[in-house]
Amino acid sequence: MKHLLAALLMLATGSLFAQSDSAQLRKLAQEILTNSQAYNNLRVLTQEIGGRLAGSPQMYLAEDWGSKALQIAGAHSVWKQACLVPHWVRGGEDKATAITPAGKRKLDVVALGNSLGTDKKGLKAPVLLVHSFDELESKKEQVKGKIVFYNYPFNNTMVRTFEAYGDASKYRGQGPSRAAQYGAVGVIVRSMSHSTDNHPHTGATRYDTNYAKIPAVAIGLRDADWLAAQLGAAAVEVSMQTHGHFLPDKQGHNIIGELKGTEFPNEIITVGGHLDSWDNCEGAHDDGAGCVQTIEVLRAFRSIGYQPKRTIRFVLFANEENGLRGGNKYAEEAKAKGEKHVFALESDAGGFTPRGFGFTMSEEQFQKVSTWRSLIAPYGCSEFSMGGGGADIGPLNRTFKTPLAGLQPDSQRYFDYHHARNDTFEAVNKRELELGAVNMAALIWLVDRYGL
Amino acid sequence: MKHLLAALLMLATGSLFAQSDSAQLRKLAQEILTNSQAYNNLRVLTQEIGGRLAGSPQMYLAEDWGSKALQIAGAHSVWKQACLVPHWVRGGEDKATAITPAGKRKLDVVALGNSLGTDKKGLKAPVLLVHSFDELESKKEQVKGKIVFYNYPFNNTMVRTFEAYGDASKYRGQGPSRAAQYGAVGVIVRSMSHSTDNHPHTGATRYDTNYAKIPAVAIGLRDADWLAAQLGAAAVEVSMQTHGHFLPDKQGHNIIGELKGTEFPNEIITVGGHLDSWDNCEGAHDDGAGCVQTIEVLRAFRSIGYQPKRTIRFVLFANEENGLRGGNKYAEEAKAKGEKHVFALESDAGGFTPRGFGFTMSEEQFQKVSTWRSLIAPYGCSEFSMGGGGADIGPLNRTFKTPLAGLQPDSQRYFDYHHARNDTFEAVNKRELELGAVNMAALIWLVDRYGL
Repeated sequence: MKHLLAALLMLATGSLFAQSDSAQLRKLAQEILTNSQAYNNLRVLTQEIGGRLAGSPQMYLAEDWGSKALQIAGAHSVWKQACLVPHWVRGGEDKATAITPAGKRKLDVVALGNSLGTDKKGLKAPVLLVHSFDELESKKEQVKGKIVFYNYPFNNTMVRTFEAYGDASKYRGQGPSRAAQYGAVGVIVRSMSHSTDNHPHTGATRYDTNYAKIPAVAIGLRDADWLAAQLGAAAVEVSMQTHGHFLPDKQGHNIIGELKGTEFPNEIITVGGHLDSWDNCEGAHDDGAGCVQTIEVLRAFRSIGYQPKRTIRFVLFANEENGLRGGNKYAEEAKAKGEKHVFALESDAGGFTPRGFGFTMSEEQFQKVSTWRSLIAPYGCSEFSMGGGGADIGPLNRTFKTPLAGLQPDSQRYFDYHHARNDTFEAVNKRELELGAVNMAALIWLVDRYGL
Repeated sequence: MKHLLAALLMLATGSLFAQSDSAQLRKLAQEILTNSQAYNNLRVLTQEIGGRLAGSPQMYLAEDWGSKALQIAGAHSVWKQACLVPHWVRGGEDKATAITPAGKRKLDVVALGNSLGTDKKGLKAPVLLVHSFDELESKKEQVKGKIVFYNYPFNNTMVRTFEAYGDASKYRGQGPSRAAQYGAVGVIVRSMSHSTDNHPHTGATRYDTNYAKIPAVAIGLRDADWLAAQLGAAAVEVSMQTHGHFLPDKQGHNIIGELKGTEFPNEIITVGGHLDSWDNCEGAHDDGAGCVQTIEVLRAFRSIGYQPKRTIRFVLFANEENGLRGGNKYAEEAKAKGEKHVFALESDAGGFTPRGFGFTMSEEQFQKVSTWRSLIAPYGCSEFSMGGGGADIGPLNRTFKTPLAGLQPDSQRYFDYHHARNDTFEAVNKRELELGAVNMAALIWLVDRYGL
């Protein structure tokens, strides 16, 4: 009887806790869905500041904006954590023209990030079409003096589009050096996208210092198809002109807002996105969305009067796109100071409707977060899976084995915009953006309440 | 030992079946994600034919287009099932102007579907602002001679937007007659949307024949907020001019394509969407998407050489928006012919990324479809719930207790476009549209293989 009573009491208490959790999350959701500042913050960041590549004047404007926005949202303290960032500049308009037997045609291209430009008068060379590195190897005798055109398509049959991106992006990363190895003078890469438009998508390339650092551009999908069709019929030359180069590193900053924990102030939870973006777009989905959602989680906690048990850091990371210096610096300084980082969450997969979270943590920790699934699912994140996090919080995991989570919004439209000129404010939907923040706030709240 | 062997055999066979199911669904998905005609079909339907309200010339163009598309997709037979449809026409440009102490301002309005127009010179009257029917009742003495402005907002805190729509749409449906009951001369309804733009959203109103059939328009959200603010400060008159009227019913048609079943040809599975749309938009999400997905399921089945056991009907229903005559006719004729309808699926919630299915069926049947969840989830529909179907297949359930399912795409953006001028081809994403078709094909395939 005593056991029965105890059991009933436990059940009742558990149920009360669950009801109270559910009510708290509902309160958070209502606060965000009613009074969110995320959309307006995104408008300012994207339309008033715009593209904000590491080292650019806009990087500093965005840092100041972020500091102020974190203060307004109610951080107990806000500071800038300095870190040196690379300073690559595009240096001018990227141009390419195809010269076919039928005449000339302008191609819609964008130089790859970190790529070096042609010389001032540009380069002109015959184009060699390949669809893979295997084909490059099999044609290596033909590469010398050519512009290699990697026309590897995004795999549409991969339902999770980040898989297709992982599959295709090696041509952007390694393509230039692997072609240079055999004497290529330039590279054209099919954009990493399955969009229906012709916007080219940039992104970082990584030169292998053993080979010449040859110019490299991404080409829009329609132009890629057109160029491939021309090459099937006749020899084609392309003239291209790009201007990319590096200036000396600059002093950039992670922008950090903090709520001090009431019970376990030394246990730090991090939530963030990255403040930098490529220069050819407004960086709305990548990753303005993650930044304003991070700020919104803070604002909502303060607005409902929530006092966290643990210390929560709201971080706008520097230089994710072409260096990851911000994420690395954050973990380095945490290590130097002997901080205890118990959890980190990143939003860097677009401001789309939330579907789930991907977790990098122990099986035991995953079991624990899985018990929260039914509390969070009503707001969109019904899919919890192992694997995931974010580039900027990765160093925390590598340094401290900090458990990580990544917000996983629906991914179908992400690569329509990623690193392309149409990644603008208008491409983000207000409610989808806000619901992302709701799900992030819910997860952070549960981790703060119950630990991991 | 014998039992153990039998059990092992069953396990092995079950596992083989599951593998084979999974492989078949993969094949269907790959076919659709690689060779889909859905997007191009949608382009033709929306951009070449356009809005296609029941009774309009575009209705007939759409019927001919649909017949041809079903033939091209490989139906064994295609026919038109005649049904009389109402023929409401807008009759001209809907106009409204606010007259405030500060001057005149044009309002962005659209007459409600089935509403009757003002007389030729229009009407002008003071505006009475109410936020609910309760407030209307409390102010009923003030209604006479006024234009009643229902400014009831969409409830943003309802995560499933169809709930907010259900909550708000009574003001569109019943608002005019409830105001006319107290002598109102016109009605303005806040659009059923939480968009950030100013497009007004139409949709059917239902006059109560006991009261005057007064003119009624929906107003864009920004103008609604502006008008409410003006009314807070001073008396405002609105002049409005609309032209809606009914012409005699027309002969419309459900467009039906069929694949004859090889084993159970008398057991009929229906999959469909509705071919009509409002006249003020291209009807891309509502419900061009459902139509081209339906045709795509057929095309994919034929393309992979699948021969269904049961008879599958691919139906483009007539007149969902302002009469449901198509859906009713389909069930009536089925009853008259003594047909056996074992399952029906509708897609009429937009061409957005698929998230789940809602089912109207017995608990036992729901248990059975739930065992398929893990087979379908990899393509997006991971959320299976009770409740759902579609307006056009509802009569099948009411007539035969036919089990129903409705595709549930993500709903966050649906009411940005629903019945508004921006429901255009460009608002639909190719992959999201195709993935909807993938999930529909998967469910239909499983029902055909295993019954319910």
